[in-house]
Amino acid sequence: MVYSSKVNAEIIAVGSELLTPHRQDTNSLYLTEKLNDLGIEVRFKCVVGDDRESLVAETKLGMKRSDIIIFSGGLGPTEDDLTRESVAEALGLTLDRDPEILARLEKRFAKRNLKMTPNNIKQADVIASATVLANPVGTAPGQWISGKYDGKDRVVILLPGPPYELRAIFEAECVERLRARVPERQIATRVLKMALVPESQVDARVAPIYKTYTDVDTTILAGDGEIQLHFRCRKPTLKEAELRVNELAGKVEDEMGDAIYSTKGESIEQIVSYLLQMRGLTLAVAESSTGGLLAERITSLSGSSRYFLGGAVVYSNALKTQFANVPKALIEKHGAVSREVAAAMAEGIRKRCLSSYGVGITGIAGPTGATETKPLGLVYIALAGEEGTQVVERNFPGDRKRIRIFSTLQALEMIRRVLL
Amino acid sequence: MVYSSKVNAEIIAVGSELLTPHRQDTNSLYLTEKLNDLGIEVRFKCVVGDDRESLVAETKLGMKRSDIIIFSGGLGPTEDDLTRESVAEALGLTLDRDPEILARLEKRFAKRNLKMTPNNIKQADVIASATVLANPVGTAPGQWISGKYDGKDRVVILLPGPPYELRAIFEAECVERLRARVPERQIATRVLKMALVPESQVDARVAPIYKTYTDVDTTILAGDGEIQLHFRCRKPTLKEAELRVNELAGKVEDEMGDAIYSTKGESIEQIVSYLLQMRGLTLAVAESSTGGLLAERITSLSGSSRYFLGGAVVYSNALKTQFANVPKALIEKHGAVSREVAAAMAEGIRKRCLSSYGVGITGIAGPTGATETKPLGLVYIALAGEEGTQVVERNFPGDRKRIRIFSTLQALEMIRRVLL
Repeated sequence: MVYSSKVNAEIIAVGSELLTPHRQDTNSLYLTEKLNDLGIEVRFKCVVGDDRESLVAETKLGMKRSDIIIFSGGLGPTEDDLTRESVAEALGLTLDRDPEILARLEKRFAKRNLKMTPNNIKQADVIASATVLANPVGTAPGQWISGKYDGKDRVVILLPGPPYELRAIFEAECVERLRARVPERQIATRVLKMALVPESQVDARVAPIYKTYTDVDTTILAGDGEIQLHFRCRKPTLKEAELRVNELAGKVEDEMGDAIYSTKGESIEQIVSYLLQMRGLTLAVAESSTGGLLAERITSLSGSSRYFLGGAVVYSNALKTQFANVPKALIEKHGAVSREVAAAMAEGIRKRCLSSYGVGITGIAGPTGATETKPLGLVYIALAGEEGTQVVERNFPGDRKRIRIFSTLQALEMIRRVLL
Repeated sequence: MVYSSKVNAEIIAVGSELLTPHRQDTNSLYLTEKLNDLGIEVRFKCVVGDDRESLVAETKLGMKRSDIIIFSGGLGPTEDDLTRESVAEALGLTLDRDPEILARLEKRFAKRNLKMTPNNIKQADVIASATVLANPVGTAPGQWISGKYDGKDRVVILLPGPPYELRAIFEAECVERLRARVPERQIATRVLKMALVPESQVDARVAPIYKTYTDVDTTILAGDGEIQLHFRCRKPTLKEAELRVNELAGKVEDEMGDAIYSTKGESIEQIVSYLLQMRGLTLAVAESSTGGLLAERITSLSGSSRYFLGGAVVYSNALKTQFANVPKALIEKHGAVSREVAAAMAEGIRKRCLSSYGVGITGIAGPTGATETKPLGLVYIALAGEEGTQVVERNFPGDRKRIRIFSTLQALEMIRRVLL
């Protein structure tokens, strides 16, 4: 990624609890969305503990590299809340008690019939030259400091950590102030998704295309067997921005063809849902190694009862016969994990449920159960319909969870392709 | 917080996608847990985009302030993957192609009948003096660099971004190497878990107990209907630390009784698994509103085929009759979402699968399907066994996903209690 000359931001989350395995900073996701909508790019995110020395150092670093530095947290009343003091020190500014804030704090406590403990007083401390950002839903107000540092325009924003307080202050006090600092722009976005295509292959094919669109930000996300291409473009008018992302998306669609399962951000479950409903078709599944995950994914959508009849989790061989009509002799001959049994499961469940399509999945999700000829990750996925039965053999790498996710994704992709 | 003289770490997550509103670094939570278990404290977490200049600067900063610097991400095959190059530059070391890794990469692609595109080659680049950390589940290996920088001992670890790859490498290649670098650890931890008890109730009952143990860190985590109490104590000897956490855990167990389903961190699926196996019992499930999620949760454990026979996802009424023997007339009389149908599903699936216990779940997971008498979130969960059938009616708040998670948790909790 090559950085443009756009306004950029850095988000610093403050709090030792955010450095434990149990808690995570989520404010930065909200802030990033809002900043991106304003045309501001987030270039760094940091988490710093409740430690003055670290906070001062991180503030100084932020002032060097980012136009806008947003702090979340560390504005409360306890001794551990050190953001105000640390930022003041880093900027070489004094911290002064604001009598108006103090009066508001006292009033707030009195209104709730609570005694204001002395530690609350520090929430009235304001960095010299700062604009106070009123907090409509809590005690600690935010602060906005802007000025030149090393000859560069900088904005420092202090916000409280509780998400509903941070959001309330940001929307009411920061959005318009920030908008005034960035050139007016309109933003268009597009998301293309693919399943079970290697990331390196996608990148090798689409990079030559998106690289010629230097005015469109392209992000490739890969995970759980899926690839997402995110395009984002900013232009003086929305029409210009849309023209560019749509043109780029169109070229990528031409290159990748029907490997792309959705062009507007829909999930593969949604696409399969549309396709089945459009044609008035129904589905049933017989799952062994995926243990119900395929049914769970399909029924995660509201309204799935319109096309999903149900199915069976046939973990034992007896149930493969009982619920999916798989002949006992077939299992004995080929083994439960075999092309033949997968096909029989798909055909059997289709027949039993009187559905348009039937899916059968059998495999070795591990970590135990692998044999010399049937390794961990070996999975057969079958799809049976009026036109016949197809079976795919795959060797998925990874652990039990991943093998199950990939197996169900393969099934969804097979359904999608047969309905295209 | 005052920093002790302990070994400290910094985690740097690399990837522009982690600076969008769509993705969040979660590897750092896993790494923090593992590092804390070793007695290593995480003092900074950062997210940096795929930008060489930023990465070099962040690496140099890390070398100044942290004993151990762990990078996650940026080791893949695309042009955006810049961690190797940037860390080498920051440390002033060369990057050399490793013929062994290259051979392994080529073999891996050949085995999958895939052509290795040229961009994959860079995954064989190794920083001079680095130890290669084998990746058993993916293409890019990790790297371990240790040495003196500015007279201080430093370790830099590069790990790939996909969580299952990062975890596999960290457990196999990093844990013991790190243990050798920290003073003998003396940390004892305990985790107690409860299902479907309100957090405020738990806190009101256990806070008076854990507050008297000022030398034990207590964290209460709540989510997905479960409450976890984490205790952690550091002492000069392990024995002393264990004594304290065990004493505290014992008092909390006395207070909460059999609401506590596990005392050593096990999941409720694992506890149900132990209890069923200990008694040589089997289970089958018939799911409507949970759409396969209960089967999926149970079979997420390896070896679940020893006690889980399978079941049916009976989304349509016809399948409730076909797979779970629910009389058509019963559905017509009481409706599919009713105490009677849940009981019939549990009994029917038990009979069909010849299992010791049968579960039936029927409800309204929404967001559509609610009626005046049957609101969103109304769920009936039935458990049938030799001793008879019990049905629980619940009104779960929240969205479709949450209602399904709570419904399956309720079923698991019912199985656990009947087996106690």
